[in-house]
Amino acid sequence: MILVFTDFGPAGPYVGQMHLVLRRLAPEVPVVDLQHDAPAFRPDLAGYLLAAHLDWTEPGDVVLAVVDPGVGSARAPLAVRCDGIWLVGPDNGLFEPALRRARRLETFAIAWRPERLSASFHGRDLFAPVAARLARGDRSTLGPGAPTRFPELPDDMAAIVYLDPYGNAVTGLRAAALAPGATLRVGDRPLPRARTFADVPPGACFVYENSSGLLEIAANRARAADLLGLRLGDPVAIVTPDC
Amino acid sequence: MILVFTDFGPAGPYVGQMHLVLRRLAPEVPVVDLQHDAPAFRPDLAGYLLAAHLDWTEPGDVVLAVVDPGVGSARAPLAVRCDGIWLVGPDNGLFEPALRRARRLETFAIAWRPERLSASFHGRDLFAPVAARLARGDRSTLGPGAPTRFPELPDDMAAIVYLDPYGNAVTGLRAAALAPGATLRVGDRPLPRARTFADVPPGACFVYENSSGLLEIAANRARAADLLGLRLGDPVAIVTPDC
Amino acid sequence: MILVFTDFGPAGPYVGQMHLVLRRLAPEVPVVDLQHDAPAFRPDLAGYLLAAHLDWTEPGDVVLAVVDPGVGSARAPLAVRCDGIWLVGPDNGLFEPALRRARRLETFAIAWRPERLSASFHGRDLFAPVAARLARGDRSTLGPGAPTRFPELPDDMAAIVYLDPYGNAVTGLRAAALAPGATLRVGDRPLPRARTFADVPPGACFVYENSSGLLEIAANRARAADLLGLRLGDPVAIVTPDC
Repeated sequence: MILVFTDFGPAGPYVGQMHLVLRRLAPEVPVVDLQHDAPAFRPDLAGYLLAAHLDWTEPGDVVLAVVDPGVGSARAPLAVRCDGIWLVGPDNGLFEPALRRARRLETFAIAWRPERLSASFHGRDLFAPVAARLARGDRSTLGPGAPTRFPELPDDMAAIVYLDPYGNAVTGLRAAALAPGATLRVGDRPLPRARTFADVPPGACFVYENSSGLLEIAANRARAADLLGLRLGDPVAIVTPDC
Repeated sequence: MILVFTDFGPAGPYVGQMHLVLRRLAPEVPVVDLQHDAPAFRPDLAGYLLAAHLDWTEPGDVVLAVVDPGVGSARAPLAVRCDGIWLVGPDNGLFEPALRRARRLETFAIAWRPERLSASFHGRDLFAPVAARLARGDRSTLGPGAPTRFPELPDDMAAIVYLDPYGNAVTGLRAAALAPGATLRVGDRPLPRARTFADVPPGACFVYENSSGLLEIAANRARAADLLGLRLGDPVAIVTPDC
Repeated sequence: MILVFTDFGPAGPYVGQMHLVLRRLAPEVPVVDLQHDAPAFRPDLAGYLLAAHLDWTEPGDVVLAVVDPGVGSARAPLAVRCDGIWLVGPDNGLFEPALRRARRLETFAIAWRPERLSASFHGRDLFAPVAARLARGDRSTLGPGAPTRFPELPDDMAAIVYLDPYGNAVTGLRAAALAPGATLRVGDRPLPRARTFADVPPGACFVYENSSGLLEIAANRARAADLLGLRLGDPVAIVTPDC
């Protein structure tokens, strides 16, 4: 299966053009759009969202991920195999959280270049053809190499990495980061922890483990991001009882 | 075929995560997204839109519908067969118009529960797996039971149940509800009936039978909802000549 | 393969209803959504976008394109074969740029009419069934005829034909229209030509050949359309050195 993750947004021709390439080169492989509203131009934030999706992948899957502000510049293309799952996209930190969490890593470089490589759309011209071939078991586009590593990125990101269509604010923190007794704060405000929306009064803000395993700031029947004035990249803090 | 209907919106990861489950569990069954902009958190309105889609279904189809403000609370999951078509989703009134119109009804309860059930996303964790199995002819997730009925909901809904991207305002009234000689009113304003957009002058508002068989308030080359100040849930009235 | 191109937008039930028809009538043919945010109600602009997509088609493909402000009026339906590729949609100028550029043209009329033809949605009721049948090699819906021609439309359109989700402004000019030494102007403002985003300073506007082969006005890490106040249909001009 090929799973697609981008910041291209719900409109525009770009997702369709990638699908067209995938269908031509791997007609028998199912393609699923994971999401196309990853944080635009922010591979540093998008990587934590992407890593959470990997819980739902299986060996043999190919994840084609494109959040690529440096397209057309010197950043390299990347293909890597994490615990049996192929990851294909720009070598710009987008895959660092996934690489960090992998138990078994097989590294490569993408040696192949297409005849027709546009300056602005490597997703269609380079990453999609590589992903399609890997999904069919064809590694001919690969050579020896390894991804750039980004040691400055944390294991979990204490910041808002995604605002969903309902106004929920997803953090880059896995649920286990909030130990029993500890509290998540945005600005000066501590947020109560709950299991789900129905457990707090209408309009109340809270933090919970969302369906992807990440800590998410939400409000019952209201838009938490609007109530709290949260924006993409805003920091959050975990405060332990002894502080 | 599996037909998907939700209020998740065009963006976000939720539709993709449901597709991923459907593809894993029923790879040979085609999946079509009917629409993902059903009235958010309003199963009472969304049900009339959903029922209109059923005109285009065929026996054996599975309709997976999720408009689920009570997710994580006590509302039950539902699977029911209406005239040979499976309906799967929350038992919150979303299916009442479909149940009301069915000629032949087979009722069940969903007895199966997944190992991994998130508090906020039963669409992915519970409804999609049940839908995928039913699409393959596997009823092992079902047990005896019956859906809750919502007698307070009308047969046709005299209100705006959907605002489409062009600013057309779809009512929950089937076209036959407007007898010859009768008039549809919004507020104090009666609307002329026409066959289609080209039959009225540019900018004029009118009511017509839309392509789903529902009465829809539209304007030729203009946004009727904006011209008339219409919002989701606003009432409309049918006025007969003797009134 | 069936490629779908419309102005229906990312939301709403209309794309899904067309997919449902395609899946029923041609279950074995892959369907790819090229884009659904073509310029609304502007076949005269959308045609130049559509023609650029054809570079990525192959003989046997069916392009189902619907930008159809005149639906329900007298405009005819159209099916035509350009260099082995089927084009199906309204006969309103949307296909004129494609017809103009074709080397080999086979013309027809659509003789078939569905039993159930809504006044407002020929995309689902008429064009999709014809496209599905053509994709399976079935020409039974066709008769003798030819499309209307639109000699008033230029070979290349010196205007903004699309604003993409990133605020890039795509013109209807193929890259070759801007000869070496010539300059593209919007209003009084000449724009420098660059290869891609990374080649100009952050915030700077430029023109480049986009990934579809069209001249596009963009800005590095900014929204060119906002910076320059560009709207759909705005004219651009090519100024040669001797002017």
